[in-house]
Amino acid sequence: MQVLQSLIDARFPAIYPVNPRYTSVLGLPCYPSLKDIPGVVDHVVVGIPAESALALLDECAAKGVRSVHFFTAGFGESGYAERSELEKALLSKAEAGGFRIIGPNCVGLYVPRNRLINGLGMPLEPGPISFISQSGGNAHDLPYYGVRRGLRFCKVVSYGNALDVNESELLQYLAEDQKTSIIAAYIEGVKDGARFRKALEKATDRKPVVIYKGGNTSAGNRTTRGHTASLTTSTAVFHALSQQTNTIQVDDMGELTDALVALHFVNPLPQGLGVAVVGMGGGPSVLAGDVMEEAGLHLPPLSPETQAQLKQFLPLAGGIFGNPIDATSLLTPKAIESTMDILSKLPDIDMLVYHLGFHPVSYWGDGRFSSSAFLDPVIKAFTEIRQTAGKPVLLALRPAPDMRGTKEFLTAQEAFVCAGVPVFYSLRQLAKAAAKIVVWKQREVRNVF
Amino acid sequence: MQVLQSLIDARFPAIYPVNPRYTSVLGLPCYPSLKDIPGVVDHVVVGIPAESALALLDECAAKGVRSVHFFTAGFGESGYAERSELEKALLSKAEAGGFRIIGPNCVGLYVPRNRLINGLGMPLEPGPISFISQSGGNAHDLPYYGVRRGLRFCKVVSYGNALDVNESELLQYLAEDQKTSIIAAYIEGVKDGARFRKALEKATDRKPVVIYKGGNTSAGNRTTRGHTASLTTSTAVFHALSQQTNTIQVDDMGELTDALVALHFVNPLPQGLGVAVVGMGGGPSVLAGDVMEEAGLHLPPLSPETQAQLKQFLPLAGGIFGNPIDATSLLTPKAIESTMDILSKLPDIDMLVYHLGFHPVSYWGDGRFSSSAFLDPVIKAFTEIRQTAGKPVLLALRPAPDMRGTKEFLTAQEAFVCAGVPVFYSLRQLAKAAAKIVVWKQREVRNVF
Repeated sequence: MQVLQSLIDARFPAIYPVNPRYTSVLGLPCYPSLKDIPGVVDHVVVGIPAESALALLDECAAKGVRSVHFFTAGFGESGYAERSELEKALLSKAEAGGFRIIGPNCVGLYVPRNRLINGLGMPLEPGPISFISQSGGNAHDLPYYGVRRGLRFCKVVSYGNALDVNESELLQYLAEDQKTSIIAAYIEGVKDGARFRKALEKATDRKPVVIYKGGNTSAGNRTTRGHTASLTTSTAVFHALSQQTNTIQVDDMGELTDALVALHFVNPLPQGLGVAVVGMGGGPSVLAGDVMEEAGLHLPPLSPETQAQLKQFLPLAGGIFGNPIDATSLLTPKAIESTMDILSKLPDIDMLVYHLGFHPVSYWGDGRFSSSAFLDPVIKAFTEIRQTAGKPVLLALRPAPDMRGTKEFLTAQEAFVCAGVPVFYSLRQLAKAAAKIVVWKQREVRNVF
Repeated sequence: MQVLQSLIDARFPAIYPVNPRYTSVLGLPCYPSLKDIPGVVDHVVVGIPAESALALLDECAAKGVRSVHFFTAGFGESGYAERSELEKALLSKAEAGGFRIIGPNCVGLYVPRNRLINGLGMPLEPGPISFISQSGGNAHDLPYYGVRRGLRFCKVVSYGNALDVNESELLQYLAEDQKTSIIAAYIEGVKDGARFRKALEKATDRKPVVIYKGGNTSAGNRTTRGHTASLTTSTAVFHALSQQTNTIQVDDMGELTDALVALHFVNPLPQGLGVAVVGMGGGPSVLAGDVMEEAGLHLPPLSPETQAQLKQFLPLAGGIFGNPIDATSLLTPKAIESTMDILSKLPDIDMLVYHLGFHPVSYWGDGRFSSSAFLDPVIKAFTEIRQTAGKPVLLALRPAPDMRGTKEFLTAQEAFVCAGVPVFYSLRQLAKAAAKIVVWKQREVRNVF
């Protein structure tokens, strides 16, 4: 644990490329072998073929390194017995040599605060979310696709075959890590159930934990064996454990992103399941009613008094006043602000939803919704509702299907995200994520008191 | 029915704007009232306030028009008793005057073959799909968002409150329409269950029918009342009717689009549920295994002989050979072609899936996947597999999160769609749509023999 701590918190003062065929790499002096490097080496990133791995670990022991990350694949996950044996031999070498192994078959560490970046296009700003992932692709995917939704990361650890450092140790570490306030995980298989349970209990006691468990079917399970040599844990056991520990379970990377957006940006967390939905369009309004209630949220019908209040300034023709609320004018800041202000004061409404881009009249492309004339007052209204009524506003923004629309969509998304508004790409995704965090919070509260 | 036929098939030789305040509109002479128009008027599109509707219908009767489309809203769906009465009075006028009403509260007709276009950005090319929609927004949305997926339409009818022309008559019409080969519907409520059942039986006997039923929850149901004055039909009854008639049921506009893409482009239709999944990345491969089997498809494990064949040319390190098949080289046309060629010959594989953009190494942005060096041979390989093995290839392409990536994604999507490849935006969406059409086809075959 201490080694891992120092490893992740180290600032890696120097990078030493090692390759016998070069004398310099990207302007850095390149060394023929580890032992030729002057001074101390803390961490080694390995990208040589599996066949040469054991000899390298002898050099690592001689050099006194503290950790070795094997990007190298082709070990236990290959399905060949001799490769599984080779993997076990790596662990013996590490134990004898007094250093730790991350992987093999993984992309290792992404710690932006320390400028430890393992992929192109990864954001350099740090954030409060940490992510452990048995898949290297998923370890890159979440920060890359999450950046425009406002997600920033503290530590992302891809741990592949989990030969040495594994999910339980990482969970325990992140539970204690002061800089991590939300924990996310992509897990294919757990090697030591009892230890994992203990680590998960500790982590969920201290902060929200969201887990995407891969390999739930025979085909998925077979694939995790080839991917990270994991025998996947029973889905039913995993589900029960999540229930007992109040772990938020999700079913793919999209749902993981949505849950993290909700946990990070929905502020304050809603007190209950009551939602009011506002936006332009009958089709999206009917859909919103269906997907919200299917997700377990509740849309309280509006009283005749509230409806009468809304009808004072919203046009009657083409409008729906029941909750969801739909009116042709609900694309102008003034109508949005007045409507949401009235709704935010209702005692049975715990959160507000606004949707944009789901109806032809609100399509992206003509610049209306990326203009400051639209964005500034709408963002101001959302912020004021949050502050004065103490209720969060969630936003469903539908991505555009063409270049012109995408440009406008990205501009609007950036403005909302910068203002701390939780953005989701569909009403269904919003509903599922919102329901998950409300249920999580309600169970949290019950556990505490 | 005859009136509707002639209405929809008419080529609308002239457009006469009517407004007492203008003498010309967009260069066309504008008339103060209907009766001032020289010559015959077949069809009237109404955008005046509800209060003036009855007087207008007297003019329509005098002029001998055949059909009136009320864009105008604010009738039964407003919830006011006097507006429901007004709506009923419209129907009496139409019956007495010998003409039909479409709507009120709808966007009417989109018939691109006859250049009858009711929205900006709607494609002008006709196609084989017809769509009836109780929501005007959804009536625009499907052609607008479907165009880049390759969907083109024959007749799209938005029928709103269904005062006169309704879902049953439209279904019956489309069942007989020679130019329509696939029927899609968005329905909130059905007014005459027995008639609808008969129409649906007739339609499903002749062609595939996909229905998205809106308003399945208390909030959804309440919203449909405000949207189109519909008392939604029981979801359970609707589900049972769909099962009995082999109607394909979907739950939102995205699923409707996916089902239509599958019906139109998956060619030939798969003989069974066996799928082989090919693409780069362990994370997407595990997900693919899970979502395909969860959707009801089957991923047969590959025999040791087939795996050995693949290992002759695919790299061992980082690869998965079980089905899904993942290898770092599966982003090059040669490896894609060779892998899919081997898989397409297996008797338990009924369809092939390739996925792109779901792993960091296959992200959009550097121009690789929009180059003809990639697209031409890959499209050629997919086409050949379809022709020689008689098995369809389905493609999951993940949209990009930024401008540069979107440009490349749209270029690749266009090339694939133009070549007749069914494109889906996620592995889960692909799996759900593929499973739906296989089950539909299997039930079709059982009904025929």
